[in-house]
Amino acid sequence: MDERLAKQIAFSLEIDKEKNIMRQTHLSGHGRNENDAEHAWHMAIMAYLLREYANEEVDITKVMLMCLIHDIVEIDAGDTYAYDSEGLATQKEREDKAKERIFSLLPEDQKNELISLFDEFEKYETPEAKFAHSMDNFQPLILNNSNEGGDWKEHGVTSKQVYGRQSKTRLGSEKIYEITDQIVQENIRKGNLKA
Amino acid sequence: MDERLAKQIAFSLEIDKEKNIMRQTHLSGHGRNENDAEHAWHMAIMAYLLREYANEEVDITKVMLMCLIHDIVEIDAGDTYAYDSEGLATQKEREDKAKERIFSLLPEDQKNELISLFDEFEKYETPEAKFAHSMDNFQPLILNNSNEGGDWKEHGVTSKQVYGRQSKTRLGSEKIYEITDQIVQENIRKGNLKA
Repeated sequence: MDERLAKQIAFSLEIDKEKNIMRQTHLSGHGRNENDAEHAWHMAIMAYLLREYANEEVDITKVMLMCLIHDIVEIDAGDTYAYDSEGLATQKEREDKAKERIFSLLPEDQKNELISLFDEFEKYETPEAKFAHSMDNFQPLILNNSNEGGDWKEHGVTSKQVYGRQSKTRLGSEKIYEITDQIVQENIRKGNLKA
Repeated sequence: MDERLAKQIAFSLEIDKEKNIMRQTHLSGHGRNENDAEHAWHMAIMAYLLREYANEEVDITKVMLMCLIHDIVEIDAGDTYAYDSEGLATQKEREDKAKERIFSLLPEDQKNELISLFDEFEKYETPEAKFAHSMDNFQPLILNNSNEGGDWKEHGVTSKQVYGRQSKTRLGSEKIYEITDQIVQENIRKGNLKA
C-alpha cells in the first residue's frame, strides 16, 4: 500500500476512538450519555438543514466538515463540559497537544487542511465558524429540552451560565438564537434551570 | 415558532434515535457494537479524506450528505446485516415505509431533497452513490480488520460472501477496492474468514 493511503487509513482508524468520548448531554427519551461522534454527525445534518438561518452566507461544505471534525482532539484531551470552569482553564493546552498528535497521522497537506479548519472553528471569526458553533450549542439544547432539562438539573446549571454560552449562538444565527431564548425561558418557568 | 422551523427541529430531534440503532460491526480495540450515527459520521469523514480515489469526479458535499443520511430509515426498519439473507428479502419494503414517515417530518422541499438523495444512494448509479457505497463497505472493513475479523468469525462469514459485497466497492473506487482485496486476502490467510 502506498504511504499516502496508509496514512489516510491510519487516521481513519484512529478517529474511531471518538465514539468512546462521552459528553454530559443525554440522548432524547432520557437515554444514555451521547458521545462525540454522534454529536458531530447530528450537528452536521442540522447545519445542512438549518443553513437558511445563518446570519451570513456560508460555505455549507466547510461548515459540515467543521462540525464533523471539531471534537477529534477530545480523543486525547477528553470532553470539557461547557460549565466546568476548572476544565476550561486547561482545555486549550490539552487540545493543542492532541491536535498535533492526531492530525499528524495524515499526509502533510491533509494535516494542514484539517488543522486549519479546526483552528478556524476555534477562532469563532468566519461566518462558517460562527454558524458551526450555533449548531454546537443548539444540538445539545434540543436534546436537553426534550429531556425536561435533565442535564442542567444534574449539574445545577443556572440560566446565567446558559445565556453566557448560548448568547454566542446569535453570532451565527439570530433566528436560531430567538428559538434558543424561547426554549431557555420555558425551562426557567418550569424550574428546570435555576434563575 | 414558525411552522417551517418547527418541522426542521422535529426532524432533527427524531433522527437522534439513529444513535440507538446498533450494527454488527464492533468498534476498534475489540469495543462494543457500533451504531448507525457513528458509522455515518465515520463514513462522511472518510469520504472527504479519500475522495481523490473516486473513479469519477464526485460532488463531495453530496457524497457526504448521502453518507450522513443513508441509514436514517433504519430508525424504523432496523439494521439489516449485510449477510442476513432473510432480512435482506424484506429490507426494501420496511425501508420505504420508514422513508415516507421520517422524511415527512421535514418541510416539503427538504423532504423531497433528502428522499431524492436517499434514493440516489440506493440506486447505485451516479458517481456520488457509487463512492458513498465504497465508504459504506470500507469503513466497517477497516474496523473489522483491526479486530482480527471478529465480526466475520462471529457470523461464520465466508470469503465468497465478503467478495459478493465488497466487489461493488470497485464501482466507486478501484484504488479502495485494491486495498480491500489485500485486506480480505490477509484475513483468509489468517483464518479469520472461511475460504
